[in-house]
Amino acid sequence: MSSEHGGKSVDVVVVGSVGLDTIETPFERRERLLGGSVSYACVAASFFSHVGMVGIVGEDFPETYLDLYRGFGIDVTGLQRAAGRTFAWSGVYEQDMINRRTLSTELNVFADFEPVLPGTYRDAPYVLLGNIAPELQLHVLDQVRRPRFVVADTMDLWIDTAADPLRELIGRVDMLMLNDGEARQLTGLHNLRRCGARLLEWGPRYVVIKKGEHGSMMVSGDGLFLLPAFPIEDLHDPTGAGDTFAGAFVGRLASKKTLDDAAVRESLLCGSVLASFGVEAFSLDRLTDLSAQHIDERLIHFRAMLAAGN
Amino acid sequence: MSSEHGGKSVDVVVVGSVGLDTIETPFERRERLLGGSVSYACVAASFFSHVGMVGIVGEDFPETYLDLYRGFGIDVTGLQRAAGRTFAWSGVYEQDMINRRTLSTELNVFADFEPVLPGTYRDAPYVLLGNIAPELQLHVLDQVRRPRFVVADTMDLWIDTAADPLRELIGRVDMLMLNDGEARQLTGLHNLRRCGARLLEWGPRYVVIKKGEHGSMMVSGDGLFLLPAFPIEDLHDPTGAGDTFAGAFVGRLASKKTLDDAAVRESLLCGSVLASFGVEAFSLDRLTDLSAQHIDERLIHFRAMLAAGN
Repeated sequence: MSSEHGGKSVDVVVVGSVGLDTIETPFERRERLLGGSVSYACVAASFFSHVGMVGIVGEDFPETYLDLYRGFGIDVTGLQRAAGRTFAWSGVYEQDMINRRTLSTELNVFADFEPVLPGTYRDAPYVLLGNIAPELQLHVLDQVRRPRFVVADTMDLWIDTAADPLRELIGRVDMLMLNDGEARQLTGLHNLRRCGARLLEWGPRYVVIKKGEHGSMMVSGDGLFLLPAFPIEDLHDPTGAGDTFAGAFVGRLASKKTLDDAAVRESLLCGSVLASFGVEAFSLDRLTDLSAQHIDERLIHFRAMLAAGN
Repeated sequence: MSSEHGGKSVDVVVVGSVGLDTIETPFERRERLLGGSVSYACVAASFFSHVGMVGIVGEDFPETYLDLYRGFGIDVTGLQRAAGRTFAWSGVYEQDMINRRTLSTELNVFADFEPVLPGTYRDAPYVLLGNIAPELQLHVLDQVRRPRFVVADTMDLWIDTAADPLRELIGRVDMLMLNDGEARQLTGLHNLRRCGARLLEWGPRYVVIKKGEHGSMMVSGDGLFLLPAFPIEDLHDPTGAGDTFAGAFVGRLASKKTLDDAAVRESLLCGSVLASFGVEAFSLDRLTDLSAQHIDERLIHFRAMLAAGN
């Protein structure tokens, strides 16, 4: 697939799903929105770094959505277009806007997805393995030459259905991101500090346990990092918040000169800020009208909320 | 009631319940433990300030528990002893160690409690109105001459049964502490930022919304302060965590030279640290063997967990 960045090597490779989402909240219903983990993650990362997308869409994928990716400067050389229909998901959020029910999942072209990295992606120093089957995440990892930092996101489905490849994957990444329920399911432990400590033993340098509206906790050899979520007043669609968080994190980290604990922490802060914008509107709508100044202002605002006094 | 501090004015006055608690967790059952909001709050505050207790006990109240208060240097002149039995509560914690069921509540001497402040308490600059009926909290407030800072804690029971006096109380305090469910119940709003903003309109300068294991959020004219909970690995008994948090907060604040946003924030940090120690054992057991050095070490440790990177 053509791209204005086709010839330039990327800083961050992101793999994941591209989906057409139909979402219902207690307040509104929207159809065939641009969604999927790689859409949210790439757009969020693109605010800070040059990003290459790896994914698959069908013949029904709207050209306007491709234009949206390109408008963010995302390299879509690694986005395959296959015969058939694009992955489609529909779900309903409950009154609390947190719990949701899946109404339908149509894998469509995603069922036969075999991610292939274009040459310009293979030397990417930063890699985000978005939430897809661990086998596919490993397959992408095999195609990157010497990545500096690899992040993997996962979900409960793979803990149930692909435990062995997931365990192999965890042993090969620098950072594992997962939510609190998944951390408990994966380790069989309840206390999240203990979950994090156990997961560190499996290989990663960093484990980030996400707790939705309650923020996240990072466990590493340097200790814990406790990060509240940026508190928003207008929640419209929580879909993709975790992917936005992960994408902005990796994009921000890739833009820094140093790769140490302080850089990782600041990048997580930035991930939380981008996620807080993302959920203020459906799909990528809020990120589409976001400026660097909006981000900087909210980052300053967020830091003031976290200052621990004296 | 006699006290080694009977003649010296106190820095902090704390009113609340004294109870004999019978507590069952999935792991252990303990009977007639020292409990009640004023026990936890006074002991926690006593690490930082000279504290005067206001409460009531019955003839069955063990002398060893009085000795425990005195061992912390707490002035118990304001602790009444009445004919009859001490307030008694029993409850069972569920497997998650968060949700609990009350098995029995015997008000006993607490039913006719009329708090009276000894003369040495009336010029106290700091006042913590622990969780009792708002009428009693107001009655205590009426007896303090010119307090510098008044904190009130409340609970869902009073929102249902004493809405008017509670509203009057909220209009007369500097800080209101309550948990997330109570903030929603009291304001009829769901979003916690909006709850906090609404409650500020009722009078207090600060509203602290407690979220248990997820920490707390302070709303004030200076903006928001987001404070995660110190993550503990060994939770044995969550009873009294909120009272310990409030008590340590007020005690710490009273020990400072300045009373500003930074001082308030650091004191909340300290409240979270004391609460994290408190729940590591039943009743006041963990606080009883705690040193200033333990507290300082955990405060340093906690700050490192909150540092937001660069």
